[in-house]
Amino acid sequence: MLNQKYVEMCGRKSAIRELFAYGSERAKEIGYENVFDYSLGNPSVPAPDSFTKEMIRLLTVENPVKLHGYSPSLGIDSVREAVAESLNDRFDMNYEKQDIFMASGAAGAIAHAVRAVTAPGDEVLTFAPFFPEYNPYICSTGAQLKIVPADITTFQINFEAFLDMLNERVMAVLINTPNNPSGIVYSTETIDKLAMILREKEEEFGHPIYIISDEPYREIVFNGVDAPYVAAHYSHTLTCYSFSKSLSLPGERIGYIAVNPACGDSALLVDMFGQISRGIGHNCPPSIIQLAVTKVLYDTADLSVYETNKNILYTELTKMGFEIVEPGGTFYMFPKALEEDAIAFCSRARELDLLLVPSNSFGVPGHFRISYCIPTEKVERSIPVFQKLADQYLS
Amino acid sequence: MLNQKYVEMCGRKSAIRELFAYGSERAKEIGYENVFDYSLGNPSVPAPDSFTKEMIRLLTVENPVKLHGYSPSLGIDSVREAVAESLNDRFDMNYEKQDIFMASGAAGAIAHAVRAVTAPGDEVLTFAPFFPEYNPYICSTGAQLKIVPADITTFQINFEAFLDMLNERVMAVLINTPNNPSGIVYSTETIDKLAMILREKEEEFGHPIYIISDEPYREIVFNGVDAPYVAAHYSHTLTCYSFSKSLSLPGERIGYIAVNPACGDSALLVDMFGQISRGIGHNCPPSIIQLAVTKVLYDTADLSVYETNKNILYTELTKMGFEIVEPGGTFYMFPKALEEDAIAFCSRARELDLLLVPSNSFGVPGHFRISYCIPTEKVERSIPVFQKLADQYLS
Repeated sequence: MLNQKYVEMCGRKSAIRELFAYGSERAKEIGYENVFDYSLGNPSVPAPDSFTKEMIRLLTVENPVKLHGYSPSLGIDSVREAVAESLNDRFDMNYEKQDIFMASGAAGAIAHAVRAVTAPGDEVLTFAPFFPEYNPYICSTGAQLKIVPADITTFQINFEAFLDMLNERVMAVLINTPNNPSGIVYSTETIDKLAMILREKEEEFGHPIYIISDEPYREIVFNGVDAPYVAAHYSHTLTCYSFSKSLSLPGERIGYIAVNPACGDSALLVDMFGQISRGIGHNCPPSIIQLAVTKVLYDTADLSVYETNKNILYTELTKMGFEIVEPGGTFYMFPKALEEDAIAFCSRARELDLLLVPSNSFGVPGHFRISYCIPTEKVERSIPVFQKLADQYLS
Repeated sequence: MLNQKYVEMCGRKSAIRELFAYGSERAKEIGYENVFDYSLGNPSVPAPDSFTKEMIRLLTVENPVKLHGYSPSLGIDSVREAVAESLNDRFDMNYEKQDIFMASGAAGAIAHAVRAVTAPGDEVLTFAPFFPEYNPYICSTGAQLKIVPADITTFQINFEAFLDMLNERVMAVLINTPNNPSGIVYSTETIDKLAMILREKEEEFGHPIYIISDEPYREIVFNGVDAPYVAAHYSHTLTCYSFSKSLSLPGERIGYIAVNPACGDSALLVDMFGQISRGIGHNCPPSIIQLAVTKVLYDTADLSVYETNKNILYTELTKMGFEIVEPGGTFYMFPKALEEDAIAFCSRARELDLLLVPSNSFGVPGHFRISYCIPTEKVERSIPVFQKLADQYLS
């Protein structure tokens, strides 16, 4: 008499997590240094010292009853205020405390945002290639996730396909820029065009269409790349942020939803997020982590290694004959596979202990994802292995 | 076009949280020391030093990439193993790692447990008086929460009413011992009788009926009180635990579900919990907190103050003429109000800056809850205020 929905989900586990588990087992056999594991988006650089110092300071100086006490369900007031202020400083916005909801990473933020602005049966559109965990996040709310096919020449938005799919049941458009898995950053032109279309359709359909903007990679943008702040371009924007990548804290589950005050009903939306948390028994992100990140809102881990790794991989793989749209940020790259069947291609790679994720679960055929959040020396040692793989096809 | 379910929930906020908010405002006016705030179950004693030391040690010694890295979605392996072992040591059980799921406090644990063992429309029974947040936790799953009326002479189980309500749509029985709000601990006799009835009904109905045992107060049991470990008495038990009260860490959102291996399908259930987390975007409790509590599984905060406070209040209020079933644990007491209308009674108390929660939201009329997790000196200073209140009725 178990709930069959969840029993069935057990059979549809994340391909990425499964590949990562394989890599961990394989490392036990042949040594960690010999597995070129490009499977998981787990940051490879330490959290900034300022975070660690603030954690130790809080533990040393603060009254533990207060420090570890219940957080209000929308987040600690001072934390929400500081987040609003930092966004205003950086992006010239007008957030106030009441517009900020502290969430359990971007995952929790997205799931809450979708629950708030859709009813069961409503549609949410997202653009391929997309993060496959959007499926459980959105499907569990009762809304339907529809995938707009990719523009594989640029990995910007395929507007023609988007317009075909944009109907009045669409309540939200979920975007992810900088993008996992392509590494592409949507340009100002792309965002402005998207905003213009949505404003027209809002008028036509007579209801808001929210942009749910998934931005965990916002701080990982490479030199000179145009990376607009989405909410500055569109009123009905719910910005879902995580500190997982910028501060290298993926396990500590901390992020927020910033509701653009131009939404009009931002305080109500934030209040609704609190009720959604209450319903799932989740309540709030950990108090001490909320307080600690507040002191490092303008810091990041040393993220420069990701650009270094990108440059090596992009240069070398392109030289070998791989077709790649050059990433503008993140720690992902999404080259075209050397055969049509991405799964077969990645299986061949795996025989060389090179772990690549086939593109199928990202909604695009014939590509693969490289998560290059690994040490640079390992990236360098992996180049001859990529060459061996390429030689099987190209020589 | 916002989701009306959550909009409506915004109008039905926790009476306890609202009273607490009133108390905080009132404290700003007349001074914190002059408000006798018995509203909130927020532990008043510090976390044990051993926890703080372990947190600082982890932050100082561990590799931050590993320390703050993603937790597996069921919890960190070593943490799950240590939790299983500690339960086996203390309660003579046979848990293994695969039976333990790390959860975001007891709230998250209960919500997950209910989602796993019910389908929408199924019934979950609980016993008055009950923690009112069970309403959002259970209703959000699609299951129905039905309240078995209280046995107000003992606050043990009203078995007659229970048997009347136990039908084949009941998939789970949610119990909370030691109990919030009564402070009562279910005796071995109560648990055995409950187990016997459920075993009979499982056979009759041809499906399991799970006990979801909400045990955040397990470690707060007063001298000499019989406090059986529920799972040791019934196979289909899902034990929902939180470290909030035992370690004074309510803000850090850490607990677990221990699935009795005698359930048979414990590993599947734990796997389902992981999928439920995935669906709500929650994923896992914070990594560093998981690791830190593992080192203090046999410790508690200094919980003795709660028994001291109970003794003062029970003795003095009984002397004044209040009728009280003496608590066996927790930091709650649930006396009979001095008039039928508990809300009117608590309003009168509030005029004396004595904040008491009326019993209505706990599913029992004519009582009130005292949360005596406040400093003993304040408990002592509150006695003349209780006397003033009693005098309005009894003199």
